[in-house]
Amino acid sequence: MRVGVHKIKMGNPGDVSDLKRQIEDGTINPHDIVALIGKTEGNGGANDFTRGFATQSLSLLLGTYLDLAPDAVAKRIAFVWSGGTEGVLSPHATVFTRSEAEPAAGKRLAMGIALTRDLLPEEVGTMVEVRAVAEAVRHALMEAEIDDPRDVHYVQVKGPLLTPASIADATSRGAKVVTSDPNGSKPYARGATALGVAVALGEVDEAALSDEAIAKRMDLYSSVANTSAGGELRNCEVLLFGNSPKAGGDLRIGHAVLKDVVDSHAVHAAIRNAAGEDGDGDLSVDRVKAIFAKAEAPVGGMLRGSRTTMLSDADIHYERHARAALGAVITSVTGDAKIFVSGGTEHQCMPGEAPIAVIVQV
Amino acid sequence: MRVGVHKIKMGNPGDVSDLKRQIEDGTINPHDIVALIGKTEGNGGANDFTRGFATQSLSLLLGTYLDLAPDAVAKRIAFVWSGGTEGVLSPHATVFTRSEAEPAAGKRLAMGIALTRDLLPEEVGTMVEVRAVAEAVRHALMEAEIDDPRDVHYVQVKGPLLTPASIADATSRGAKVVTSDPNGSKPYARGATALGVAVALGEVDEAALSDEAIAKRMDLYSSVANTSAGGELRNCEVLLFGNSPKAGGDLRIGHAVLKDVVDSHAVHAAIRNAAGEDGDGDLSVDRVKAIFAKAEAPVGGMLRGSRTTMLSDADIHYERHARAALGAVITSVTGDAKIFVSGGTEHQCMPGEAPIAVIVQV
Amino acid sequence: MRVGVHKIKMGNPGDVSDLKRQIEDGTINPHDIVALIGKTEGNGGANDFTRGFATQSLSLLLGTYLDLAPDAVAKRIAFVWSGGTEGVLSPHATVFTRSEAEPAAGKRLAMGIALTRDLLPEEVGTMVEVRAVAEAVRHALMEAEIDDPRDVHYVQVKGPLLTPASIADATSRGAKVVTSDPNGSKPYARGATALGVAVALGEVDEAALSDEAIAKRMDLYSSVANTSAGGELRNCEVLLFGNSPKAGGDLRIGHAVLKDVVDSHAVHAAIRNAAGEDGDGDLSVDRVKAIFAKAEAPVGGMLRGSRTTMLSDADIHYERHARAALGAVITSVTGDAKIFVSGGTEHQCMPGEAPIAVIVQV
Amino acid sequence: MRVGVHKIKMGNPGDVSDLKRQIEDGTINPHDIVALIGKTEGNGGANDFTRGFATQSLSLLLGTYLDLAPDAVAKRIAFVWSGGTEGVLSPHATVFTRSEAEPAAGKRLAMGIALTRDLLPEEVGTMVEVRAVAEAVRHALMEAEIDDPRDVHYVQVKGPLLTPASIADATSRGAKVVTSDPNGSKPYARGATALGVAVALGEVDEAALSDEAIAKRMDLYSSVANTSAGGELRNCEVLLFGNSPKAGGDLRIGHAVLKDVVDSHAVHAAIRNAAGEDGDGDLSVDRVKAIFAKAEAPVGGMLRGSRTTMLSDADIHYERHARAALGAVITSVTGDAKIFVSGGTEHQCMPGEAPIAVIVQV
Repeated sequence: MRVGVHKIKMGNPGDVSDLKRQIEDGTINPHDIVALIGKTEGNGGANDFTRGFATQSLSLLLGTYLDLAPDAVAKRIAFVWSGGTEGVLSPHATVFTRSEAEPAAGKRLAMGIALTRDLLPEEVGTMVEVRAVAEAVRHALMEAEIDDPRDVHYVQVKGPLLTPASIADATSRGAKVVTSDPNGSKPYARGATALGVAVALGEVDEAALSDEAIAKRMDLYSSVANTSAGGELRNCEVLLFGNSPKAGGDLRIGHAVLKDVVDSHAVHAAIRNAAGEDGDGDLSVDRVKAIFAKAEAPVGGMLRGSRTTMLSDADIHYERHARAALGAVITSVTGDAKIFVSGGTEHQCMPGEAPIAVIVQV
Repeated sequence: MRVGVHKIKMGNPGDVSDLKRQIEDGTINPHDIVALIGKTEGNGGANDFTRGFATQSLSLLLGTYLDLAPDAVAKRIAFVWSGGTEGVLSPHATVFTRSEAEPAAGKRLAMGIALTRDLLPEEVGTMVEVRAVAEAVRHALMEAEIDDPRDVHYVQVKGPLLTPASIADATSRGAKVVTSDPNGSKPYARGATALGVAVALGEVDEAALSDEAIAKRMDLYSSVANTSAGGELRNCEVLLFGNSPKAGGDLRIGHAVLKDVVDSHAVHAAIRNAAGEDGDGDLSVDRVKAIFAKAEAPVGGMLRGSRTTMLSDADIHYERHARAALGAVITSVTGDAKIFVSGGTEHQCMPGEAPIAVIVQV
Repeated sequence: MRVGVHKIKMGNPGDVSDLKRQIEDGTINPHDIVALIGKTEGNGGANDFTRGFATQSLSLLLGTYLDLAPDAVAKRIAFVWSGGTEGVLSPHATVFTRSEAEPAAGKRLAMGIALTRDLLPEEVGTMVEVRAVAEAVRHALMEAEIDDPRDVHYVQVKGPLLTPASIADATSRGAKVVTSDPNGSKPYARGATALGVAVALGEVDEAALSDEAIAKRMDLYSSVANTSAGGELRNCEVLLFGNSPKAGGDLRIGHAVLKDVVDSHAVHAAIRNAAGEDGDGDLSVDRVKAIFAKAEAPVGGMLRGSRTTMLSDADIHYERHARAALGAVITSVTGDAKIFVSGGTEHQCMPGEAPIAVIVQV
Repeated sequence: MRVGVHKIKMGNPGDVSDLKRQIEDGTINPHDIVALIGKTEGNGGANDFTRGFATQSLSLLLGTYLDLAPDAVAKRIAFVWSGGTEGVLSPHATVFTRSEAEPAAGKRLAMGIALTRDLLPEEVGTMVEVRAVAEAVRHALMEAEIDDPRDVHYVQVKGPLLTPASIADATSRGAKVVTSDPNGSKPYARGATALGVAVALGEVDEAALSDEAIAKRMDLYSSVANTSAGGELRNCEVLLFGNSPKAGGDLRIGHAVLKDVVDSHAVHAAIRNAAGEDGDGDLSVDRVKAIFAKAEAPVGGMLRGSRTTMLSDADIHYERHARAALGAVITSVTGDAKIFVSGGTEHQCMPGEAPIAVIVQV
């Protein structure tokens, strides 16, 4: 297996011109595309439709190459979007291709993809979702040909959040949802899928979990999960990335834990980890191909002893503040604002902390 | 002259407890206070009343020590607030005191303060304001006992913006204002005061200016001006900071130019400049006492080749995006989120660039 | 008792000029002022400081007449503010005075005021708060000299919501708060105080209540409670209004239930109820002195069969949408935008419905 | 000609299910569809992509019936969207069909559609756009078979606004745009197209106009134009509605002028005007088929003597406040929240006033 990593620019959520260009000039083979992970310029909330628009637009384009209807494209290729390009964050997508290749001398970037079944609204944010995601992660591990869970550095999961429509649906059937507030369902939705990753990778014992633990027992977490939730989804998509001895190519992945949203040292540490190098020095950032991180508000809003106003701001959601901050700090290290920074870290690292994964060329 | 620099935390715009504590424990002598420069947690727009609330609250407290009514306190002490604590920025104020002292061996931090007369709404954003500010800057230079304009590193100016009431007032008198959009008046208001600084310091020739050049001829600028505009003001307040051979104490000021809102190198450069050291190395950040910077959107929204969405966002003003980004990058260097970052750089450095000033202990 | 009702305009949250004018011209006797109920132009959320600014500003002015420090004024006079002047709503305050008078021929407007003790953060939104408010309401009834609870038409209660600081305080003491989300604490805070009114007026049996019922058992409610929560408060203030046979003057109060935020018929019904008239006709609106209403999103976001987007909007809180709508509809009936419309109706009428009270001159 | 008017509900901007249902059950013949006018649930600003998403989604559906690619559908059918469903406004579209029919006994609803050529960014908001729109309106009049301009009650025009990309394009060619602020270009874009309508219908003499008059000379206006601007358009689309002696069917259109956003009397007047009835009484609202109105902030923010905060609010654009208010007032009259209310009335009625058009069944 050889995993290809290609960034495309997007002038708006419906702009497919850069992907088209890279397909036309032979850089990207559309038949090899297995996934896209990207940022769109919506508000990142329950009424952010830029994600659905981007999926539809790119599916329309790819359908012409794959001879598929847009819906069929979206079933074949995993689209993972995070809305919200606050601060300097730049709307873009990272396109992942997978093709046959001989194993390289050392471990190289590998990926596996798996989906859960469609979840009912009343299953969102519950142990049913945790177990469904854990099962999908195990499938993805096998597909990536990774034996040692410690070689996994990044598991992106996107699952459904509750919408007014899905809440009404559940209520009409007498079913109970975790919350009747659409925007308030995100912690449960993101938390349950993160715990699914933690269970599958052995970071958390399933026996320690229950419905009540979700979005509550924050000492239970995964250090490599990066999960989002969107109203346009009904099932969970799992994209697992690690280094495999059976993979080819010249890319490697690594990760680190951000102590807070201004932790530039962790950005350097993740680059070094991906490059397989020890020490404290800053590596050249030229070899960085892509970065995927989570942004989180500091616990109680207190950042290194100073009060921030993220958590009490009724105009701008705290995730938007946090993404703006971390996106700028990462860009100050690498110079590239086309990075994936999404909000909400329930059960992803310790409260206030967050995962960052980096893919480098070796 | 010896200038003292003291940071106070604010739990909300009406919280005066930290200033009270520092007065009570003898750290700050209320009779020596000449100015406060701070950040409040409003939206930074025409309907941001956190600035006026903070001034009233602190004036009420200081009035008890100075035996003055709140209004009289606000006339005696210069209050400069910038609303908007996006990202990690922390609400706080830097309190400046001035007392008698013998000159030190080398140049030390000095400051001068001057006010313009009240401006009519129709004068805001015009050459009348440019000239009034230039005159005030010249007064402040003398008061600071600085002979060489190159020793000036930071000139904070706060002046009026147009409000619905002031526009109505002008209109009722048949007078013409630069724009009938209150929020749209900020570029003119900030630009005119910055050009006043530039004229006084010899950065721009007054003969090159006219009403039409304001907020238009962006090649004319000051590299040390940092200007804001608020609906609560009628006149302009000028606070000039530099290093004077006649000043005592152990503080020095320096500055640099931020190429963009992720320019962490300029943060280091400004610290070195303040410390009077050459070279490229990063100095210890422990000696940093205070930072005052401007945040600006990149020209055309393009940051180092990547499209940002600051300028097309109708939900969150671009200044808020820019402050969130720069505030996080500076904090990633120094670890302290209590920094003064304000938005809008019309005629303050080249378009897209912005000034940053640092006070260090030597 | 004779209750006076005076509206003052506010040009901003710190503007006291209209109150000063009405005091100076003899319209309002500052010594008779017992309460103010008003709208300020903040966002109505946890970081809305316009309420505190308005209280401080008006207290400073009244202190000069009453020879009291601002803090003492705020203890003597009940200030009730609701932030958020969406749509056409106009920032203003209604000033209530109380003076001696002979009883009129029929029942006339009477009011009683009572406070609870300061509540701990962990008591906010619990049965402790319900009981404290119920006790205060009983005191207010006696003070208003109203014997029949059916003569009560409007009970305004303002109590504390949770803030990051108060949550941290409770957590540090090992105490459990109803939610760790400051903005999310409003339903509990408003709901508990509304149930306190319902218990005191016999609308709900206290035995039917428990901590679990608060913000959950929405079939339990008061039809005349109008409650708000603000971070600046620690205790609850109860202002009770009704018609008493012992009151004098020429004012009466009435109420109705708004079926939704476009229910203009209920506005007319409340006016008729206040005037003591039956029938379906529209009365002259000239006699309306003041209106106090609650705005609520329709259940599930569905308004008379059409989907609204209030509940899924991540940019603008649903209370802001609802206030904008109802404020415009009431103004379309009476022509006066200086009305008190606040958001959040937990346990105030049935879900989706809301109370409206009107004071008229007879 | 017979014009059909059909409302479709939209559960989100990509939801085409209601249109599909009405096509499948024979209510709407997809081959007869000539235009859609609708509201989407974005923010209505330069970064509102819900309009483009809706067009793409509906085009995909209609393409399956018309055997056309989505792009070709959008060329054949005029899509006019306004973003922003504040308050109670409900996302929906009104679908217009046109088919052959015998003339009725009296004048009946007729419509004409015309497009301008693509405009260059530097032409947006200038006399070039005014003239291009005027020419298109004249074509639409002929197509609608209306001889007397007084029979025209509603002319919807949607044209381009400036985007960061189009501004950069113009700048790179050395061309000058009316403003470099994307959101600030809306007054020019909407104003120029409204003046185009006014010129064509004889409401304004073209000789009185110039580039300088656009968005400035507000005494020059059309009483029936309703114009919007969106970043997704390059040309202007004109949809003209009136009553023609040559039209069949049972629908008529009328209009009135809203004095402000709480003018419920004008809503009744427009219904009466459409029904062809005189007098002051309120007609049954059951016969109302569709309403199209503009919402505007009151001049100087003062509504009937009370200060509103629309114009100074830096969090929520004044158009959003105005739409929320008017949408609720119209719904309070008719009970139906699926109405077209869009913001910005430059050169559409007098400042502060706005047009409202109603289609009724006779």
